[in-house]
Amino acid sequence: MSAGAFALIATEGAARRGRLTTAHGIVETPAFMPVGTRAAVKSLSPDDVRAAGAQIILGNTFHLLVRPGPDVIRELGGLHRFMSWDGPILTDSGGFQVFSLARLRRMTEDGVDFRAPGDGSRHHLSPERAIEVQHALGADVIHPLDECLGYPATREDTERSLALTLRWARRSLDAHRAGGSPSALFGIVQGGFHEDLRARAVAETVALGFDGYAIGGMAVGEPKPLMRELTEAVASALPGDQPRYLMGVGKPEDLIEAVARGVDMFDCVLPTRNARNGQAFTPDGPLTLKQARWTRDPSPLQTDCPCPACRQFSRAYLRHLFMSAELLVYRLLSLHNLTFFLGLMADMRVAIAAGAFAPFRTRFLDRYQAPAPSGETRGSG
Amino acid sequence: MSAGAFALIATEGAARRGRLTTAHGIVETPAFMPVGTRAAVKSLSPDDVRAAGAQIILGNTFHLLVRPGPDVIRELGGLHRFMSWDGPILTDSGGFQVFSLARLRRMTEDGVDFRAPGDGSRHHLSPERAIEVQHALGADVIHPLDECLGYPATREDTERSLALTLRWARRSLDAHRAGGSPSALFGIVQGGFHEDLRARAVAETVALGFDGYAIGGMAVGEPKPLMRELTEAVASALPGDQPRYLMGVGKPEDLIEAVARGVDMFDCVLPTRNARNGQAFTPDGPLTLKQARWTRDPSPLQTDCPCPACRQFSRAYLRHLFMSAELLVYRLLSLHNLTFFLGLMADMRVAIAAGAFAPFRTRFLDRYQAPAPSGETRGSG
Repeated sequence: MSAGAFALIATEGAARRGRLTTAHGIVETPAFMPVGTRAAVKSLSPDDVRAAGAQIILGNTFHLLVRPGPDVIRELGGLHRFMSWDGPILTDSGGFQVFSLARLRRMTEDGVDFRAPGDGSRHHLSPERAIEVQHALGADVIHPLDECLGYPATREDTERSLALTLRWARRSLDAHRAGGSPSALFGIVQGGFHEDLRARAVAETVALGFDGYAIGGMAVGEPKPLMRELTEAVASALPGDQPRYLMGVGKPEDLIEAVARGVDMFDCVLPTRNARNGQAFTPDGPLTLKQARWTRDPSPLQTDCPCPACRQFSRAYLRHLFMSAELLVYRLLSLHNLTFFLGLMADMRVAIAAGAFAPFRTRFLDRYQAPAPSGETRGSG
Repeated sequence: MSAGAFALIATEGAARRGRLTTAHGIVETPAFMPVGTRAAVKSLSPDDVRAAGAQIILGNTFHLLVRPGPDVIRELGGLHRFMSWDGPILTDSGGFQVFSLARLRRMTEDGVDFRAPGDGSRHHLSPERAIEVQHALGADVIHPLDECLGYPATREDTERSLALTLRWARRSLDAHRAGGSPSALFGIVQGGFHEDLRARAVAETVALGFDGYAIGGMAVGEPKPLMRELTEAVASALPGDQPRYLMGVGKPEDLIEAVARGVDMFDCVLPTRNARNGQAFTPDGPLTLKQARWTRDPSPLQTDCPCPACRQFSRAYLRHLFMSAELLVYRLLSLHNLTFFLGLMADMRVAIAAGAFAPFRTRFLDRYQAPAPSGETRGSG
């Protein structure tokens, strides 16, 4: 099976159980990808990430371009060897960060010039350069440079942006084919929040012919129902025999709802970012460690969780660490939250294969979203 | 053998190879104790600390009194269970931090009232309260409240302070005996930087009869030769069949020089604190990750080191993590530095037992302190 090959194993309604083959191994889908922004999943070692159940991680092209730079990573044997992760890696194209983080942006038909946040260094990304950088990193699944609009955006802006993204997509494909890399190249479906533009984006992106399709420009501030409606429309229009990746999503309930609408892959910083804010995800909803109610609680974060935080430590101890800003707690909560997210994906895979996804979805959401007895157990994180 | 019992296995000159028995296991000496300030060795899990080679860790009574408080820790089963460390724990008395960190201190014959840094909460420590707190924590080796002077201090101040520390030592012993705890209680030898006052401190502290002796009030700003001279004078005057603990020391060269003068136990924050500043200890001296020379260096921090940082990652990657302020690097460098310190202690134990400590000391210091070829490899940290 060639790199980027995707096999469907089972379906239930629109939900899909599949398997993606990459140069660095197999990814069982639906899959969640922990985010290794700067060549590390924040606070975790590769062994930690593997132990939490990850099969694939995401790297940010934008951040790695800025520091340490693709030349350094290539010289040190590529991103896998550099960060000591031997499993599959997916990289985004840098587009999202260029449009959300970079300073003094100047965009032309060719690409975009920007200054990096932090050190203010100058960089250039074009469709060709973004592919070249991702080839230097050696990622298994890569993406074309795209323009990511926020919400809301006018129809006129969205049409102009979509047209540019499609022209860049063609240039990216050409650059990728010329580069002779074994990576799979996914197309990115943009089109903002106009259903007909999303339909056009699907048709024209698919016509170019990619190894899989990312749904971009979601989770940028729009209402949840709108995101779900458009995700369903886009996913159902994409080829049934190729993987579908919803970029930057999301909360546990978002993952379930998107899987129910036919999405196969996800990435999100929530498990690790919220860990650093003292929030633990549990089957009964999020738990916020700063609440005084946990001060003397000897029970683990989650009774049946196999992660090191739950096997070894009490809520009382974890709260103490968080209140003391001890670095250990960020790692322990990140391990727990990733274990929770990756366990949820594994549960969904089992449920779809067994034809039991519908009751699983209901049962999970009922428990996860049930109001706590006192109204206090939920935290805003 | 009773808790706190100490057996001498071998000696070479003043250097001693021994074994301390505690309620939670054996400590081979000379021993280095990683500092678990707030019920965690900074950035590390108990498994990490054990894997680095630690047999015993230190907890700070002052910090644990302030947060989460001894009642919480006792209610959760004691410090061992609270932090999930099942090996020996030694606690200091809180004296050092009261006199270096606390605000709005008010000292009387009875004890000291202070406000905690950070939250400004009010606390009281007396000799009796310090013992009570350490009993609540359930530490294996505990200490009496003492007054720790800085450097320099007048003879008059030192005499007054020593007399108070000795009166507090007697009250601490009484409180400890009344408490019925299985902990060992070490006396603390103060006396500032006056050799005759140190001699008086040894005689009067030993006369009270403790399970071991800590040498306090060192490494507070005095010149290194003075510290070594006084350490030698104090250690040689202490009972030969009891353990000797030099508080808050030190750098690798300080550990070797103090072992050569008859010290058995040490604690210091250097391995973990310097890790957070990007400094790695190596047999060739400290290595500072912020130096640009490591940007493309594929070699490990230390070629023959068994720690995870050296087995899995390059200097280039670790430098990238440090320059990116990625939390992972603090854990990796802490693991490496503790492995280095604890390995040094193990090497000293082997050397003393083999009657080869003198050549080991020369060889280690020659390599550790040799100027680097370019003059660049050493960092100030």
